[in-house]
Amino acid sequence: IQTASLTSGQIGKDGYRHFMEKELHEHPLAIGQTLQRITDPTTRQLVLPEMPFDPATLPRATITACGSAFYAGMVGRYWLESIARLPIDIDVASELRYRNPPQPNQGMALLISQSGETADTLGVLRVLKKEQQKIVSILNVEHSTMGRESDLVLGMVAGPEISVASTKAFTAQLSVLAALTLTFARKRGVINAQQERELTNHLLDLPSRAAEVMKLFGAVRVMARVIAQARDVLYLGRGICMPIAQEGALKLKEISYIHAEAYAAGELKHGPISLIDPSVPVVAIAPSTILFDKTLSNLQEAKARGGRILAFTDAKGAERLSDIAEHLVILPDVDAFVAPILYTIPVQMLAYEVALLKGTDVDQPRNLAKSVTVE
Amino acid sequence: IQTASLTSGQIGKDGYRHFMEKELHEHPLAIGQTLQRITDPTTRQLVLPEMPFDPATLPRATITACGSAFYAGMVGRYWLESIARLPIDIDVASELRYRNPPQPNQGMALLISQSGETADTLGVLRVLKKEQQKIVSILNVEHSTMGRESDLVLGMVAGPEISVASTKAFTAQLSVLAALTLTFARKRGVINAQQERELTNHLLDLPSRAAEVMKLFGAVRVMARVIAQARDVLYLGRGICMPIAQEGALKLKEISYIHAEAYAAGELKHGPISLIDPSVPVVAIAPSTILFDKTLSNLQEAKARGGRILAFTDAKGAERLSDIAEHLVILPDVDAFVAPILYTIPVQMLAYEVALLKGTDVDQPRNLAKSVTVE
Repeated sequence: IQTASLTSGQIGKDGYRHFMEKELHEHPLAIGQTLQRITDPTTRQLVLPEMPFDPATLPRATITACGSAFYAGMVGRYWLESIARLPIDIDVASELRYRNPPQPNQGMALLISQSGETADTLGVLRVLKKEQQKIVSILNVEHSTMGRESDLVLGMVAGPEISVASTKAFTAQLSVLAALTLTFARKRGVINAQQERELTNHLLDLPSRAAEVMKLFGAVRVMARVIAQARDVLYLGRGICMPIAQEGALKLKEISYIHAEAYAAGELKHGPISLIDPSVPVVAIAPSTILFDKTLSNLQEAKARGGRILAFTDAKGAERLSDIAEHLVILPDVDAFVAPILYTIPVQMLAYEVALLKGTDVDQPRNLAKSVTVE
Repeated sequence: IQTASLTSGQIGKDGYRHFMEKELHEHPLAIGQTLQRITDPTTRQLVLPEMPFDPATLPRATITACGSAFYAGMVGRYWLESIARLPIDIDVASELRYRNPPQPNQGMALLISQSGETADTLGVLRVLKKEQQKIVSILNVEHSTMGRESDLVLGMVAGPEISVASTKAFTAQLSVLAALTLTFARKRGVINAQQERELTNHLLDLPSRAAEVMKLFGAVRVMARVIAQARDVLYLGRGICMPIAQEGALKLKEISYIHAEAYAAGELKHGPISLIDPSVPVVAIAPSTILFDKTLSNLQEAKARGGRILAFTDAKGAERLSDIAEHLVILPDVDAFVAPILYTIPVQMLAYEVALLKGTDVDQPRNLAKSVTVE
């Protein structure tokens, strides 16, 4: 396994306490470099490598991955379906590998892995290749087994990620997926030049917005004090931010050993709301998008049942949430399209700050390996 | 809302302590009556009503529901994809409603609801109807809003379900989905007469197998003592039994207020395994199907990290699990096709027995309504 010939011994922490803290600070750079590599500097248009198929006639695609990368894939599904009008089948790799769903003629399989060595995802790659699917992989380590066996590699430029819990690789994966979505939307003729320019600009502005978010560590730390006292936490989001709730819950589990679980906010009332009492805080990922009112109403239900509400939102959302939320982390206003990328950062910071308070081994959490090369 | 004109006051508990206990005992009858209504008594072939489309040329289908019914839908996805070779898009109703995925020409939407009044699912019905999808609903209350607005209703014959936590309606939903799968597989020409006969027989034998499972209350009670002491539990399953792990976790949450979460067993090592220590028991749904060895290996990893392993399996699986599992509940041998239906029953019993030990209000858990008629 080649990991850009770097080991943790060779890479310093640059004065940070943990690799995870350092890598959280590298979000703006990871997003920026990843996008820069695929941006034409004169036209500011996103230019991806030639696809091994015609995106205009692609009937359907499969997305698969494991862990955090799978949640990046879920955001990718929302984007590709709603913006590029491409139907997506998505599943975790360990399930897809044995599920044997019918595959379309001339379909695409989109696989996401930081290391390019994830055994479950590699297993799916081989199964779907036999089913004549074109394999496009989004990888941080391009010279990896998955890289060699793919028809096309879309590289992230996140740099080496040492912390076992993924941070910047996740936003770099999302950046590639967003660029792929706009490219497909253009080639499929479902977006006009102005829409494409606007969405591209939102994306290319993200590194600056991400840099502003670095100032939020203090606000996140206050929220972390509530979470650190809990044994159980629910994360809620809707639509394109639901996978970010999933990512937040997974990250908290991984490094703080607190049992966090994410739900689509609308599912809360179909069962999990019975868990809620003052000992189970609720963390909402709630930018003021078109779905904000629905999420607000779900949070009011949770509050009415004794839940302590914590939320990531923007200035407009904060006005509406101030009555019910105990703590808010207020992010810069961004277009809904790029909100999942930006909101990832403070949500991961929260897990980090909680782990610090709990005194766990942040960079090497118990029971976990960085790259899972067994089934 | 018409619920077969019966209220809880009019229906007795027949000597059971709770409606949930009574309804658990009605699993064999609910499965049996549901199948009987759609079985030709002379040929023993399953005969569903004429579909409002030709199943042979159906390009793709969408499945949606909320809560437990959604997990029934997930089993339906496995069946319809692997046996009837029909590609499925699945999502919870509250997400699908606003996700706006591209819909196929002449597609089918399969909606599942006990009451036929679930607001989120009804919302999707109306959205997909506008998108020209044919609406097929699987309902217990056929004379309901969803019933009136569907192109076709496939009725369960589960009888009134009073307990807020669903039991027999779930296995009745699965029975309809299994029958639909075999019907579609026949009409799509992807199954031969002998295969169909064999799978049909497995299904029609289920009421007897379910009756045998009623004898397992004692074994389940022993397992319940371990769970009742836990604050957090992980449920694991693979493939067609993964949604049964989800159903088990949801049921435990709903009525015992223990934070149970389900994972595809293969995802455990991609993050949630860091939660595992002796205070977080692991419940496996592990019939000895083709995926048994993979699940066993995931359980061995959990055991090695201090996890207490509890499992639902069959005699053959029990031999392999006896070294690592603290308690086993051993079910009758059944074909993998019908395993999800049978395994549901003791998994729901477990939630019931734990709730009894915890002294919660089994039939009316806090914060929950039987039929969620708001968004």
